[in-house]
Amino acid sequence: MQELLLDPDRCFDPDPAQKQVARHLYECVSELPLICPHGHVDPRLFADPDYDFGSPADLLIIPDHYVFRMLYSQGVPLEQLGVPTRDGAPVERDHRKIWQTFADHFYLFRGTPTGIWLRDELCSIFDVTEKLTSESAQRIYDQIAAKLASPEFRPRVLFDKFNIEALSTTDAATDTLEYHRAIRESGWAGRIVPTFRPDAVVNIAAPDWRPNISKLSEVSGIDVGGYDAYIQALENRRAFFKSMGATATDQSAQSAYTGELTPVQANGIFQRALRGQATPEDAARFNGHMLMEMARMSIEDGLVMQFHAGSWRNHNQALFDRFGPDKGADIPVATEFTRNLRPLLNKYGSDPRLTLILFTLDEATYSRELAPLAGHYPALRLGPPWWFFDSYYGMRRYRELVAETAGLYNTVGFNDDTRAFPSIPARHNLWRRAEANWLAGLVVRGLVDVADAQEMIHDSAYRLAKRAYRL
Amino acid sequence: MQELLLDPDRCFDPDPAQKQVARHLYECVSELPLICPHGHVDPRLFADPDYDFGSPADLLIIPDHYVFRMLYSQGVPLEQLGVPTRDGAPVERDHRKIWQTFADHFYLFRGTPTGIWLRDELCSIFDVTEKLTSESAQRIYDQIAAKLASPEFRPRVLFDKFNIEALSTTDAATDTLEYHRAIRESGWAGRIVPTFRPDAVVNIAAPDWRPNISKLSEVSGIDVGGYDAYIQALENRRAFFKSMGATATDQSAQSAYTGELTPVQANGIFQRALRGQATPEDAARFNGHMLMEMARMSIEDGLVMQFHAGSWRNHNQALFDRFGPDKGADIPVATEFTRNLRPLLNKYGSDPRLTLILFTLDEATYSRELAPLAGHYPALRLGPPWWFFDSYYGMRRYRELVAETAGLYNTVGFNDDTRAFPSIPARHNLWRRAEANWLAGLVVRGLVDVADAQEMIHDSAYRLAKRAYRL
Amino acid sequence: MQELLLDPDRCFDPDPAQKQVARHLYECVSELPLICPHGHVDPRLFADPDYDFGSPADLLIIPDHYVFRMLYSQGVPLEQLGVPTRDGAPVERDHRKIWQTFADHFYLFRGTPTGIWLRDELCSIFDVTEKLTSESAQRIYDQIAAKLASPEFRPRVLFDKFNIEALSTTDAATDTLEYHRAIRESGWAGRIVPTFRPDAVVNIAAPDWRPNISKLSEVSGIDVGGYDAYIQALENRRAFFKSMGATATDQSAQSAYTGELTPVQANGIFQRALRGQATPEDAARFNGHMLMEMARMSIEDGLVMQFHAGSWRNHNQALFDRFGPDKGADIPVATEFTRNLRPLLNKYGSDPRLTLILFTLDEATYSRELAPLAGHYPALRLGPPWWFFDSYYGMRRYRELVAETAGLYNTVGFNDDTRAFPSIPARHNLWRRAEANWLAGLVVRGLVDVADAQEMIHDSAYRLAKRAYRL
Repeated sequence: MQELLLDPDRCFDPDPAQKQVARHLYECVSELPLICPHGHVDPRLFADPDYDFGSPADLLIIPDHYVFRMLYSQGVPLEQLGVPTRDGAPVERDHRKIWQTFADHFYLFRGTPTGIWLRDELCSIFDVTEKLTSESAQRIYDQIAAKLASPEFRPRVLFDKFNIEALSTTDAATDTLEYHRAIRESGWAGRIVPTFRPDAVVNIAAPDWRPNISKLSEVSGIDVGGYDAYIQALENRRAFFKSMGATATDQSAQSAYTGELTPVQANGIFQRALRGQATPEDAARFNGHMLMEMARMSIEDGLVMQFHAGSWRNHNQALFDRFGPDKGADIPVATEFTRNLRPLLNKYGSDPRLTLILFTLDEATYSRELAPLAGHYPALRLGPPWWFFDSYYGMRRYRELVAETAGLYNTVGFNDDTRAFPSIPARHNLWRRAEANWLAGLVVRGLVDVADAQEMIHDSAYRLAKRAYRL
Repeated sequence: MQELLLDPDRCFDPDPAQKQVARHLYECVSELPLICPHGHVDPRLFADPDYDFGSPADLLIIPDHYVFRMLYSQGVPLEQLGVPTRDGAPVERDHRKIWQTFADHFYLFRGTPTGIWLRDELCSIFDVTEKLTSESAQRIYDQIAAKLASPEFRPRVLFDKFNIEALSTTDAATDTLEYHRAIRESGWAGRIVPTFRPDAVVNIAAPDWRPNISKLSEVSGIDVGGYDAYIQALENRRAFFKSMGATATDQSAQSAYTGELTPVQANGIFQRALRGQATPEDAARFNGHMLMEMARMSIEDGLVMQFHAGSWRNHNQALFDRFGPDKGADIPVATEFTRNLRPLLNKYGSDPRLTLILFTLDEATYSRELAPLAGHYPALRLGPPWWFFDSYYGMRRYRELVAETAGLYNTVGFNDDTRAFPSIPARHNLWRRAEANWLAGLVVRGLVDVADAQEMIHDSAYRLAKRAYRL
Repeated sequence: MQELLLDPDRCFDPDPAQKQVARHLYECVSELPLICPHGHVDPRLFADPDYDFGSPADLLIIPDHYVFRMLYSQGVPLEQLGVPTRDGAPVERDHRKIWQTFADHFYLFRGTPTGIWLRDELCSIFDVTEKLTSESAQRIYDQIAAKLASPEFRPRVLFDKFNIEALSTTDAATDTLEYHRAIRESGWAGRIVPTFRPDAVVNIAAPDWRPNISKLSEVSGIDVGGYDAYIQALENRRAFFKSMGATATDQSAQSAYTGELTPVQANGIFQRALRGQATPEDAARFNGHMLMEMARMSIEDGLVMQFHAGSWRNHNQALFDRFGPDKGADIPVATEFTRNLRPLLNKYGSDPRLTLILFTLDEATYSRELAPLAGHYPALRLGPPWWFFDSYYGMRRYRELVAETAGLYNTVGFNDDTRAFPSIPARHNLWRRAEANWLAGLVVRGLVDVADAQEMIHDSAYRLAKRAYRL
């Protein structure tokens, strides 16, 4: 029955010769530990040894914007899926009903990565052997609920079962990392490390920027009344994150603009921002300057720098007002790297101490800008296909568009980038299979030999991520 | 002999396993009726039961800019192909000679959709069993001419033979729909419905805008002297189209800009336009405003809204001056949807009464903007690959770039979008085959099961179009 | 052993049916002479019958920015690879050591076109039968060095062995073509022709523009003190190039902007440039004007016009300062053709005397702009995939994105575009194989018949280039 649901050769091209090579390459790496260097799993899961995931809807639907945005796109209100409102207005609380609505619409995910991950997850983790339909919904709910109640479904147990070697979370610059501390102090051996994400104290246009600056003063013990103190406070926090195991930072912005300000200019903007008088132009220039500053700090403290560009956050204003951020309404925009990154790359891109990992939501930039840039600047590496492109065909396009110019070795393996902890094995599995199939395609076309392909799949599945993220 | 020309497994990938699944899926839908919700067939064909297509050149060459632009691109003057000039300057009138020129250059269409449609059409509809070459040209001309003279080649007979369930034409807002009326009054059962196309009365920069406004006054019986009357006249015409069976509207613009004006602003621009003093900026703002107004009207009257963005019309000025529009010289431009559609989508994109179907000529927007937007906003659906992308590889890219993010169910099946009535079956056939092959590729990779793929091909070939266009 | 390195069916899809057709098509053209209508081979190679390539590092590493940029991207300094500095600062001179460094990093080229060409070149030309690794490096060095010392490795001998029918070099407008003259006067029968490249005297923003204008005065015998004399001098040089066998020109610019200036405007800018007072805006307008002027001249003198758009040259300023241009730091930028080329195409695009061949580094423009433009304007043809896209998957994308709209016959076959003379057969071989595989894919899908595919591969491999470049 399981084999009906999960083809052991899934993701491989149907040609028997290619399939055989793909299967061989996949088997070379299918048992390797997982390196998870970028994601959004909540560290609380591991701080409490008895952490409980809640109901199947708590686990798989309510917090997952990949899931509920698809139902929303077909007219299902988020309230009906139990997504909490900002003002506490009531939403559906019957989790069986939420689950039924989800199952009734599961056909929407046919051929999508979310559908493929969920099928894998239900089958591999929850031993569900029938297809999720309106009819089977409640039986499957029962089956998942029973599993979730059992001791093998504590996150720490799953962490070991999933064979995770290291997992990085994403944490605000002002985070006290108390859960990370608790994990460390608990004596548990799992390696969970924080990632320094300064967006909320860098983006002076964000509504919460000023309260976050206050918080920054508080946690750093440095009174952030001016630009110099601000930089000191950030350096202080980076040192703290590093002391807690962090190996990387992460920044996000709509544009990839970089450009250095003089200290006087930077402080001028900073002071206007403190007074609530910064313009959109100020915000853009400050952000471009802070990308350069973060590169400088990375060179000094050795934290790997990640930069995610090109998402228009919270495109649907009414939905944002009612439900807040991360509700499936972040929409990509065209992104420009060649001109925008030139200041940063000219100043720091050839420094051997820097690793800068880039992510894009504009696939037109893969072959036009990112692969040529990564194929030149020593500091630059390309992150795996991000978000919408973390998918079977997305991975294929990524390799076909990037690898001929940048090679494999200017990329960094896989990131699962997920909040949904139990989906991690399914995501890495899809990557490893898609990569095995890509390489098998090169082998059967005589473009790469098997010995090289074996090295490459090992690099792609494990070594590149470990090395690039210094884990 | 026919099999030499038309491989029964054409369009399917060569791998035997995939081919078998593709053939099975194709056979599930090959006999389903055709839904033709967007196109440019002249309703006169059906108003007159004895309508005569004319010569083979009248049917296949002279009116088809897909055909003659390719010969033009290789130096064949349009005059030599019988394309009429605006000023009546003489052009080739010997249709056998035109046909010979076409056949002499038919090699230009190798591997193009036009070549594939024509081969299918000649074989399936005109029983031509030899290849079109310089040598066979006149024999094939005779064969087609004989068929065209026979009673089975009246459009109404073909309509039934083609198994068309519904066919939408495209009609100016000022059209009296007299041929649609004649069809209805004739008692013939074929379903031919108009589509409301307001471009000529919306685009204040068009040279004929003022005469078209006069015509709008005339046909609506409303004196369009100001913006309020203009809106009333448009609503009046929409109601009339609806009464004549219309289920949809269609707008076209170079940019996807949307943005609402105040009534005072809108009237100001409208008055400047009436005086011939509107600026290009006025035209852009007015168009952006009217897209929003059309969305509002669609919510009120239930007509599905279509929007085609991104074509630079009549790029070749000298050719336009001599021959007029639609001569194969419309060239796409880069198009931006995320920012441009935000005002419209924020105001109307979550309204369950609206269906807005988008088309693009910029494939970079498929995965970057359109799929994420359609995967979020309930009102939004993506039209099939348009124009140049209504092709085998165009369809493949469309699905690979769109389906993983938006799913199948935020798309609307196929549009043949053609003036060339006898090419309709060939176009739908190519779509159904390409879709069967795409789905078979998912099946043999274990990403979708056969039962789901059967549902999906049925949706793609028939149900999605019928539902989205409310036909 | 060789078969282990070079699969005789390399580049072909693995499906047996497709592979068989691909092999058949490839065999139809594998022995055809090579037409090399655009490249950067130094004519000195052929002026001296005893020309010596130097060491393996001289031949394959030190002058090849495709090679050393990949090692640079992984932290190997160019000094270590023997790349000469501008100021003569010392660099590695031990060529065995350079070769070892290269071999140590050869894994970086896995799956890249450079890796594939090098493997082919080592095997086919130097009879190397083992894989290049750290361990085999010095043995292979010896083997290549021995070959290079033998008389069969003089360029003229290789030219015949490679079966090259014609090879175009690229030469500055001010070049005296002395090596071309020496070749002609030597009585050797090989056809080496110059190409007129006026960039250095057209780009008024280039630092060397004024000295180059002085040189232009000198070589043309026309005192270039104003715009009229400048145009005369260019026409004079074109006539000289033509007398030396040139059939084409080539221009390069970051933007594809075209637009005509009045003579007064043109001379105004020219005078400001002579005084060193031209603005960036002047440079852009002058370049756009000179593209139009070059089209006019091509119409008058019959030289084919090539235009390469979209490269940001010398992106890494510090590297440029130390090593000069062409060091692997040219990065593409988004490019726009539809609007930018309209002035040129409206004035000259329908003139039967003009052939304008376009190249792009922005693949998003293939299907959006270039294929529709080439599928309309009689003067326009698309060059093959350029630079980063001269690769297996780059070729595949090019055909899939271009051919359905523009057909095969608005493209011009292959350009090897290389400085690396011994890599020419490997590059043409990859093209011919990739094209055979593309066409075989159309055949096994029933989209093109075998007879047509045979014509198409012949056109693609030989006839289109010969015809388009008037060779």
